[in-house]
Amino acid sequence: MNSGFTYSKIATQFSEYVLELQNKICKALEEVDGEKFIEDEWRRDEGGGGLSRILTNGNVFEKGGVNTSKVFGKLPDPMQKAFNVEESNFFAAGISLVIHPKNPYVPTVHANWRYFELFDAKGTIVDNWFGGGTDLTPYYLLEEDAIHFHSIFKNAMKHFGDELYPAYKKNCDEYFVNTHRNNEARGIGGVFYDYLRPKDEQDAERLLSFQKANGDCFLNSYLPIVAKRKNMSFGEKEKHWQEIRRGRYVEFNLIHDRGTLFGLKTNGRTESILMSLPPTVRFEYNYQPKPGSEEDKLLQVCLKPRGWID
Amino acid sequence: MNSGFTYSKIATQFSEYVLELQNKICKALEEVDGEKFIEDEWRRDEGGGGLSRILTNGNVFEKGGVNTSKVFGKLPDPMQKAFNVEESNFFAAGISLVIHPKNPYVPTVHANWRYFELFDAKGTIVDNWFGGGTDLTPYYLLEEDAIHFHSIFKNAMKHFGDELYPAYKKNCDEYFVNTHRNNEARGIGGVFYDYLRPKDEQDAERLLSFQKANGDCFLNSYLPIVAKRKNMSFGEKEKHWQEIRRGRYVEFNLIHDRGTLFGLKTNGRTESILMSLPPTVRFEYNYQPKPGSEEDKLLQVCLKPRGWID
Repeated sequence: MNSGFTYSKIATQFSEYVLELQNKICKALEEVDGEKFIEDEWRRDEGGGGLSRILTNGNVFEKGGVNTSKVFGKLPDPMQKAFNVEESNFFAAGISLVIHPKNPYVPTVHANWRYFELFDAKGTIVDNWFGGGTDLTPYYLLEEDAIHFHSIFKNAMKHFGDELYPAYKKNCDEYFVNTHRNNEARGIGGVFYDYLRPKDEQDAERLLSFQKANGDCFLNSYLPIVAKRKNMSFGEKEKHWQEIRRGRYVEFNLIHDRGTLFGLKTNGRTESILMSLPPTVRFEYNYQPKPGSEEDKLLQVCLKPRGWID
Repeated sequence: MNSGFTYSKIATQFSEYVLELQNKICKALEEVDGEKFIEDEWRRDEGGGGLSRILTNGNVFEKGGVNTSKVFGKLPDPMQKAFNVEESNFFAAGISLVIHPKNPYVPTVHANWRYFELFDAKGTIVDNWFGGGTDLTPYYLLEEDAIHFHSIFKNAMKHFGDELYPAYKKNCDEYFVNTHRNNEARGIGGVFYDYLRPKDEQDAERLLSFQKANGDCFLNSYLPIVAKRKNMSFGEKEKHWQEIRRGRYVEFNLIHDRGTLFGLKTNGRTESILMSLPPTVRFEYNYQPKPGSEEDKLLQVCLKPRGWID
């Protein structure tokens, strides 16, 4: 523990939870794939560290990363500026995953759940919040997969308030957007929330349960889709389209994603941050799918986000 | 011409020059390749437009773009902020090219030459400057190519002052850097300069000649290298390494390149801006070339920029 501040019980509980969740998710993905994740543990000189787990060239997953980190200490200068605070201490823990499957009929998935605490010079917590979300990036539009994915998170959230899913679904549609490409969405969305600030200790417990409800249903949101699509036959045409769309994924992550840019600018571990980038990618000048084609159907739904469930 | 301001004679001369240069460069590249550039002309609603010329899947060049533009009118808001000026008018013209060859022994090349004028409310020029440069991104270090490339620009610049090449070589080494990758350079550098402000009309003529001296020697800097390397034999290993390094090219252009990000944020033509991205790319977790290998030699020179000529 760093001198000058003590992070809360909730912080400890959440960081234990993300490690359990990382184990559970990696184990389940390994069972589906047959290949194993490798592990890289890293330390941060200023306090804390992380555990990156990476699967490469699997049978089902071409590249996947499931990373956890727990970092704390003096708030780095760029974060001081971003949060508009003086010198202070912080604690942050989270899990972040991106899975890029081989088969273009299996969607790419991204998820992240995190918790943050900010301390004043006396070591008192002055701010704290949870954030997180999951979103799906298919290469072909299979509506029942989109409905399944969204339903799982709507269900997980409903015990915490019926208003949450619609609000967080909207956040997600608004966030994962390539504004430089006519506001084309990265995929078919999911849920996204940030700055969920507990009002008191009891509320912090409630928000921790909310995080767990989301994290716990991740495998149910994704694995049934993988099982259904992983053996669909595909050829060069489908792989080509997948690589074109992966190009858009790269553009979003490197141009727009706040987490990625912030991580790189605050001296985060580059290899862990950029594990999100797809394994093989194509950038073609002015590529346009044929109007009415299956490729175009996916593009159209990215250009005009849809409500998947009532 | 837009009402409220009249751009200078130098502005007209420079925009005519970039069109001539575009023709000359495209013609020469077509002769080497055998394939033709396609042309896309575009208009900008607020004033001006551009001509993008793209070569795809050539015999020698896998993807190449040679773009010109001439735009003017009301200064867009993000540029007002960046330049810290009130509402004003502007003129900008330039040529920008990126060539990604097929053969990993042929380097990727980038060049850009531009001119900018800024007008106050009365239509008087309050600021104007030239900028530009060329840099080389090899996948294998062939020292004689680096020496040849740098010599050409040193030579072209020496009539304008012996101090210019060392200063602009240093700028280039400092600019094309992936700061998030241990300050790894994109390639073996070249020359880069910006905000060359003419003191008076005569000085503007001198700087226009300087731009032309640079632009005119581009083909001499690059084509002899292409001729020498385009038939070298290579296999999957070399192509794989090329695609890994192209990943770094993508990272630089999308995370750090001011021109790219500015273009995308000021509503530039996305396809013309992103023509710079390589055709096929790989992102592998924590990829490290074998110490002492030819791949590693290139990496080492990117980590520690070298002086190529005295």
